[in-house]
Amino acid sequence: MSFDVDAVRADFPILSRQVNGRPLVYLDNGASAQKPQVVIDAISHAYEGEYANVHRGLHFLSNLATENYERVRGIIARFLNAPESEIIFTSGSTEALNLVSYGWAAPRLQAGDEIVLSLLEHHANIVPWHFLRERQGVVLKWVEPEEDGSLPPEKVLAAITPRTRMLALTHMSNVTGTVVDIAAIRKGTDLPMVVDGSQAAVHMPVDLSTLGADFYCVTGHKLYGPSGSGAIWIRADRQAEMRPFLGGGDMIRTVSRDTVTYNDGPLRFEAGTPGIVNQIGLGVALEYMMSLGMENIAAHERALRDYARGRLRELNWLQVQGDAADKGAIFSMTMEGAHAHDISTILDKKGIAVRAGAHCAMPLMEHLGLNATARASFAMYNTQAEVDALIEGLTFCRELFA
Amino acid sequence: MSFDVDAVRADFPILSRQVNGRPLVYLDNGASAQKPQVVIDAISHAYEGEYANVHRGLHFLSNLATENYERVRGIIARFLNAPESEIIFTSGSTEALNLVSYGWAAPRLQAGDEIVLSLLEHHANIVPWHFLRERQGVVLKWVEPEEDGSLPPEKVLAAITPRTRMLALTHMSNVTGTVVDIAAIRKGTDLPMVVDGSQAAVHMPVDLSTLGADFYCVTGHKLYGPSGSGAIWIRADRQAEMRPFLGGGDMIRTVSRDTVTYNDGPLRFEAGTPGIVNQIGLGVALEYMMSLGMENIAAHERALRDYARGRLRELNWLQVQGDAADKGAIFSMTMEGAHAHDISTILDKKGIAVRAGAHCAMPLMEHLGLNATARASFAMYNTQAEVDALIEGLTFCRELFA
Repeated sequence: MSFDVDAVRADFPILSRQVNGRPLVYLDNGASAQKPQVVIDAISHAYEGEYANVHRGLHFLSNLATENYERVRGIIARFLNAPESEIIFTSGSTEALNLVSYGWAAPRLQAGDEIVLSLLEHHANIVPWHFLRERQGVVLKWVEPEEDGSLPPEKVLAAITPRTRMLALTHMSNVTGTVVDIAAIRKGTDLPMVVDGSQAAVHMPVDLSTLGADFYCVTGHKLYGPSGSGAIWIRADRQAEMRPFLGGGDMIRTVSRDTVTYNDGPLRFEAGTPGIVNQIGLGVALEYMMSLGMENIAAHERALRDYARGRLRELNWLQVQGDAADKGAIFSMTMEGAHAHDISTILDKKGIAVRAGAHCAMPLMEHLGLNATARASFAMYNTQAEVDALIEGLTFCRELFA
Repeated sequence: MSFDVDAVRADFPILSRQVNGRPLVYLDNGASAQKPQVVIDAISHAYEGEYANVHRGLHFLSNLATENYERVRGIIARFLNAPESEIIFTSGSTEALNLVSYGWAAPRLQAGDEIVLSLLEHHANIVPWHFLRERQGVVLKWVEPEEDGSLPPEKVLAAITPRTRMLALTHMSNVTGTVVDIAAIRKGTDLPMVVDGSQAAVHMPVDLSTLGADFYCVTGHKLYGPSGSGAIWIRADRQAEMRPFLGGGDMIRTVSRDTVTYNDGPLRFEAGTPGIVNQIGLGVALEYMMSLGMENIAAHERALRDYARGRLRELNWLQVQGDAADKGAIFSMTMEGAHAHDISTILDKKGIAVRAGAHCAMPLMEHLGLNATARASFAMYNTQAEVDALIEGLTFCRELFA
């Protein structure tokens, strides 16, 4: 099956709008992706005719909403190739990683125990572990990427000591695009592995049956889905080791004045009224991606990456952070004499949306000796013509600041 | 200003649908409310033309989304009459109450310290405190409602001992509709007061400048807003006493390998990409309510309550739990010989949506000696004709089971 990027673009209404009098070139997908019409329509459809609270009703609309909502668990399971009983709905990766920190790690890690994590991590996969350092004396051990941004599995494995209790690793850096070879790391260790798939799952097929992680989170808003949607896969044996995190309705079996007992399975970790319609929209987004084919999406983005990599290399006044062979189409750029914020602002005048800043990855930025980069991050609906527009915009910046 | 319920109904598309061949009579508002077209349209509008991630961008769409999103903080502040700097966005009341439990209570309550809470509480305002009992030996002290469902302030105050560290109280019971007089309780104690406004804020004007609470949470999906929206008001001095709860992007100031420093104000408690479009929809829902006038909404619902109370009293084979003078239009019903689930199922055949079960309030159900009730909970778009339909439906149940 071929991938028709023009047909895909036509499915995303926002892509036909103008910004500052120019056609929008949206290259801020690492921060959040745009939504196809089918997702937007699914949200409207749910609220206009099929809405009620889930799980606890017996009436028609509640049953219908519950079916529509619970069906998404199966879609996510299919998307990640994992058992449905191991998919836990979350509001996004931040909640997911805090769930692992509070629910699994906090009750078992002692002072002096070590967590190995890479300098490529996003704050969402750093701060929950800093909490354990601050609150209970857990030690964070950092693995530095190579000069080209890659993270060799043997370097990760070399950081493990007898005090190491778990690894926290991204599957794809949101700054350099580096893909981390989780399966190779798994071959060298049995330690529990928390993998942040927030970026990776958007851009490449993920097969959790072979990846080797114990915990794997995805976030809906980057997956072309609604705000406040997402999920974490937690292998059944790890679920059994966890204590509840958020307390409230639906996650309990019984509550009395003096006691409380908890539900089994995913429900144990899903307290309160969930993001019902958000998750329904996420289901539609994932079905949309699967209908295009994750391999096709990945191939399209690889081609974009290679084209962009080649064209950016021509700009000898531009520095790109991270050039690993296996990387997503994410380019963090600096230019001597121009601040990243200025680059972003000038590109914006030409309708090109890139992000400037530390990208929630301050330890990596410190390692790179930078305060900020301008980041162009591509998605399945981006085109070679948009790479050209970016190059032209950057060249204009260069002329302004040179 | 008069309240035109027909005009309001016309704003909610789902209310014109049929269920099981009958016009929908939606009386499950205590579980979740339906959404007006303006909210649904605001969601579509945001995704179709004004969407990007917030706070960290410099490009046009990110600035626009940030403006649209941050504007809602002011709307919530106005809705609750509280300073904008004290409004923290949440995904709903469950996250909000866990934020208070983990962020404020857990670091300061010791074994033997007491929390006073009422038997009217929803599990969302119980389980987070049970966690503190299980994990650190905090003692839960329960205040029982009177026979009529009311909760006299002096009874709450009488439960306070020298070991009491805080109170956790609902503002309106989701089972009996009882309104708890928070201001009167405040007159008798300076202890920190966590108030669950999930039901109350939907049905009556709330003025936090005079209520006397320290923490007050609302949940968007009950306020005619989207899934995964909500907020908690936390008084500035209490915010200053709290440690962060969810860790991730946006809530930090700096992150390095060895240290982390946190943001000030609401951002400190808002980790990661928030429920951007959900909160934008909530803002529109609250503006819609304020345009109708909370006093007008409350007056309409009082009239509905009084009419329903009178008509239900005529059914001498029906028991209604809770008959406090000051109560919302929420009626939890039992009928000898008919299980609550049967009542709900039979009413559903007539298009009437009521909820059957323990309503996430098992300690109260135990106190009442019940496993389940059938609950009819009204909202601003309900009518006297719908009360009549309910009465007719209940009478039909009675005939079936008598």
